[in-house]
Amino acid sequence: MRNILKDAFEDFFFEYETPRQVLVKNPRVGIACRILQLGVLAYIIGWVFIYERGYQNEDTAISSVFTKMKGLAYTSINGTERLWDVADYVFPDQGVSSFVVMTNFIMTVGQSQGKCPELLDDTNNCTKDSDCTMGQYKRTGNGLMTGKCLDNTTCEILSWCPVQDDRVIPNPPLLAAAENFTLFIKNSISFPEFGVVRSNLVESVNSSYLKTCLFDQNANRLCPIFRLGDIVSLSGFKFSELAQVGGSIGILIEWECNLDLRIEKCIPQYKFEGLYGNSSQASVGYNFRTAKYYAEDKIQKRTLMKVFGIFIEIIVHGQARKFDIIPTLTAIGSGVGIFGVATVVCDVVLLHLVPKKDFYKTMKFKSTPLQEQEPESVKMDQAKEGTQEK
Amino acid sequence: MRNILKDAFEDFFFEYETPRQVLVKNPRVGIACRILQLGVLAYIIGWVFIYERGYQNEDTAISSVFTKMKGLAYTSINGTERLWDVADYVFPDQGVSSFVVMTNFIMTVGQSQGKCPELLDDTNNCTKDSDCTMGQYKRTGNGLMTGKCLDNTTCEILSWCPVQDDRVIPNPPLLAAAENFTLFIKNSISFPEFGVVRSNLVESVNSSYLKTCLFDQNANRLCPIFRLGDIVSLSGFKFSELAQVGGSIGILIEWECNLDLRIEKCIPQYKFEGLYGNSSQASVGYNFRTAKYYAEDKIQKRTLMKVFGIFIEIIVHGQARKFDIIPTLTAIGSGVGIFGVATVVCDVVLLHLVPKKDFYKTMKFKSTPLQEQEPESVKMDQAKEGTQEK
Amino acid sequence: MRNILKDAFEDFFFEYETPRQVLVKNPRVGIACRILQLGVLAYIIGWVFIYERGYQNEDTAISSVFTKMKGLAYTSINGTERLWDVADYVFPDQGVSSFVVMTNFIMTVGQSQGKCPELLDDTNNCTKDSDCTMGQYKRTGNGLMTGKCLDNTTCEILSWCPVQDDRVIPNPPLLAAAENFTLFIKNSISFPEFGVVRSNLVESVNSSYLKTCLFDQNANRLCPIFRLGDIVSLSGFKFSELAQVGGSIGILIEWECNLDLRIEKCIPQYKFEGLYGNSSQASVGYNFRTAKYYAEDKIQKRTLMKVFGIFIEIIVHGQARKFDIIPTLTAIGSGVGIFGVATVVCDVVLLHLVPKKDFYKTMKFKSTPLQEQEPESVKMDQAKEGTQEK
Repeated sequence: MRNILKDAFEDFFFEYETPRQVLVKNPRVGIACRILQLGVLAYIIGWVFIYERGYQNEDTAISSVFTKMKGLAYTSINGTERLWDVADYVFPDQGVSSFVVMTNFIMTVGQSQGKCPELLDDTNNCTKDSDCTMGQYKRTGNGLMTGKCLDNTTCEILSWCPVQDDRVIPNPPLLAAAENFTLFIKNSISFPEFGVVRSNLVESVNSSYLKTCLFDQNANRLCPIFRLGDIVSLSGFKFSELAQVGGSIGILIEWECNLDLRIEKCIPQYKFEGLYGNSSQASVGYNFRTAKYYAEDKIQKRTLMKVFGIFIEIIVHGQARKFDIIPTLTAIGSGVGIFGVATVVCDVVLLHLVPKKDFYKTMKFKSTPLQEQEPESVKMDQAKEGTQEK
Repeated sequence: MRNILKDAFEDFFFEYETPRQVLVKNPRVGIACRILQLGVLAYIIGWVFIYERGYQNEDTAISSVFTKMKGLAYTSINGTERLWDVADYVFPDQGVSSFVVMTNFIMTVGQSQGKCPELLDDTNNCTKDSDCTMGQYKRTGNGLMTGKCLDNTTCEILSWCPVQDDRVIPNPPLLAAAENFTLFIKNSISFPEFGVVRSNLVESVNSSYLKTCLFDQNANRLCPIFRLGDIVSLSGFKFSELAQVGGSIGILIEWECNLDLRIEKCIPQYKFEGLYGNSSQASVGYNFRTAKYYAEDKIQKRTLMKVFGIFIEIIVHGQARKFDIIPTLTAIGSGVGIFGVATVVCDVVLLHLVPKKDFYKTMKFKSTPLQEQEPESVKMDQAKEGTQEK
Repeated sequence: MRNILKDAFEDFFFEYETPRQVLVKNPRVGIACRILQLGVLAYIIGWVFIYERGYQNEDTAISSVFTKMKGLAYTSINGTERLWDVADYVFPDQGVSSFVVMTNFIMTVGQSQGKCPELLDDTNNCTKDSDCTMGQYKRTGNGLMTGKCLDNTTCEILSWCPVQDDRVIPNPPLLAAAENFTLFIKNSISFPEFGVVRSNLVESVNSSYLKTCLFDQNANRLCPIFRLGDIVSLSGFKFSELAQVGGSIGILIEWECNLDLRIEKCIPQYKFEGLYGNSSQASVGYNFRTAKYYAEDKIQKRTLMKVFGIFIEIIVHGQARKFDIIPTLTAIGSGVGIFGVATVVCDVVLLHLVPKKDFYKTMKFKSTPLQEQEPESVKMDQAKEGTQEK
């Protein structure tokens, strides 16, 4: 018994199988096949390995962003001078990755709850009281109709009064100075699979550089301080237009890190693009309403602002690649498979398209007799052949 | 020397190897193997290529979202009429992708810093001053205890006074009119790998359509204007219940784009689901506290609102696929590999399970003599065989 | 005709090809090859299947987060007592996934628009009026210069007056009590591909447990209530330092779900890390300015707060894996391909490096005659061989 096991063990380990091959000495078929095989090899090495880096594993970044705007703007409306600082023109305050920089506004100071005439525009006209159904809203209206038609022109409504008149958007924008505001972006990313953490304040961006630098597509590609006017123009907009009606801009921070190289080469690239597509789209501009509440003479009041601004969204897109044995072997495995396809193609040519195909068939294939045949004689033949072939 | 190189070159290019095969003429094994091979082929073509689209490369979308609510609500609390507009009931103002629509609230007007009795509930009772340790907080309390037990019932605290009484949540919800508010969603996505940008305002959603349309699962699947009541009911909630205690809803915008087709076919699909799971969960409802600060008679005051509302989070999930040669060849390569598995399985059957397995073994395998054997005679045999085989 | 088709059909189905092999009985080559093949097999089974779970499909989670802070802080500044509650110290209010907990602040009450002296620091000095160019801003300044140099020390500016003096940051931090604030996190994730939804309030986290539990790395790894002091120390910071100047912390919720197991095993893991890298970085601390607006004696005023706080960002990273036939077969296919590589390596050894390589070459290869040869005689040879081999 032990001997049998030992024999089986020896048989298994002392021998190995290798396929028997026909060397087809046919220059035309040979050249075609060699070229095909070399093509496949070139593809595997060149495309999969060098171009697509099939030998590397990929990981997507987890990122976190902090922003800080700087700058001051001065307005003089109806003789009232006012200075706007960060706490006034950035929404929200906390320095998150998407925020609005106010560039224009319509301000209605001192609204309080009460009854007042609806804003006069095409859709809110009335000629008699019955045009203003009591207790109803008009879709484009600002309040609840009381049922009265004032001066035969517009309905009386229950609302925050006086109603904000937003029919005319100031032009030029009130905070045109926003063009010179600066935006500081701090972005850190981590690749959990590779245990790598990077910040956009890379090695070359030190404290002294940070104090004076300003982002520039050519000279200062790594400076994380951006002039708002530059951001707008790099996104393909004209600042004066965007500042008036508002708009949305995406700042894309792209990290493409090859971690097989030095970590210092893993640096961000900043890209700027308008969001919500081209001007042909159905909806342009960006605005929202915000209110500041206060009490005056025991009455609750609010200052309503219709804010037109630049909505900035910082989008981080990080990918790292690093050599890993699994994708390498998967790529090699697939490559060998594709190599097999090349051989199959060559065989089809050899066995079906070449004039001497029948000859090659007999070279390549050896047929067994059909099973129905008399087994005894087969064994004989087989035994004989065995001897001959040894 | 040059000849040797030329010969090697010719040898390499004028010939190619193809494996020698045994044609096993055994109907049972043959049929089984052919069916197995056809199955593998059907799998590769049908499943990998047609169903899973293994010939395409995949990219995940980068997206950006802008929202705008519209609608008015009227409340009359203790005879005070009030109209609520967007600036009053949406938090935050800026139209970001996750926000709260207030549907119910508890408002405490005119809180100021001072001393007042703690809210009377089960956990804040006291019978004597020593129950109210000075300078301590109770876990469920609203302020710092001063050490006095007022009227032998509740501790005096230093806090924003009067303390907000949130023991009873208004029912029906005060802003029940929120059911008719509308939400406009602008969503743009980009697939950086394919250089494609799309907006949810697709070709069929033009300005005039936008002015009148309202989302509807059947007729208006692409209209980006949603009635809040519809959102709630499509998420499986009852509006009146959700509006009272608040809740969280996810609006999923799904983009599944096959970029091998026309870009117009790349359209979003809107789905609605309650967040934070089923009602059996430990924590239901959604509320938060927000304060509006003001000064009255030189005293800092605030209006504290406990806001119950519908927290809406817009989640964009975009994937695009496009033909690419790499995944195609990888799929083919793997397919050829799996084909090889089919052959291995057939061989196992043929060489171990079929009655005439020994015969097939001699057909398939040719053994070399063991290396220990006398080399001379081997060469002789081999030479002889070579002649015979040629 | 029918017969021909029938024959072709029978030929195809009643036979199958299997490669002819040479059994190389060479112990050294045999052992080397077997070990190589076993190694490949072990790699495929061990690494790809067991370690990397190549038989599973992967999906990334869509997640949604809700947070709620609890706690009270008491301050006494210049004799003014004040109690701070959630509505006062959390920005923003709504319980979103990234927010700031104020731990320190510089408050300037009652600013109004007007003219006042610039803050006196190194960069804002002046000795004569011409140092203060009218209508200009200084980069580090707080307002628009009016052209006057007050007391020959500092420029007069148009600004919110008085200017906030942020030269000294309070130490110890004013809201040191924040260390005991608690944070409750509700997180739900869904894996759209697998149709699975999970919440971090898993089966073992029921209502009664929630009322009393506090997160702890050892005993209460699933409790979703965190003490702020614990979060800070688990991130590797010292609370007293971070509370003074502010800082950023990421709470990473990691879901690694093997959906082939019971769903109850799909539980989150909480990790804490400082954002924006190490202290050696160019920019430390976290602060922002926020203003509360009000009217006093018909004058618009604001309270400006420079808020130092802990910016918390909750990052959810979810991945689920489930058995799927496609990746399984892809892995097998690649494996068979790699197996082929092993055979190729062995053949290179056998045919080029072994002393008896020429012998093995004749065993493995059968050459066809060159095509230029007389076809007739070939066919003869071939016919003869056919007879012999059968």
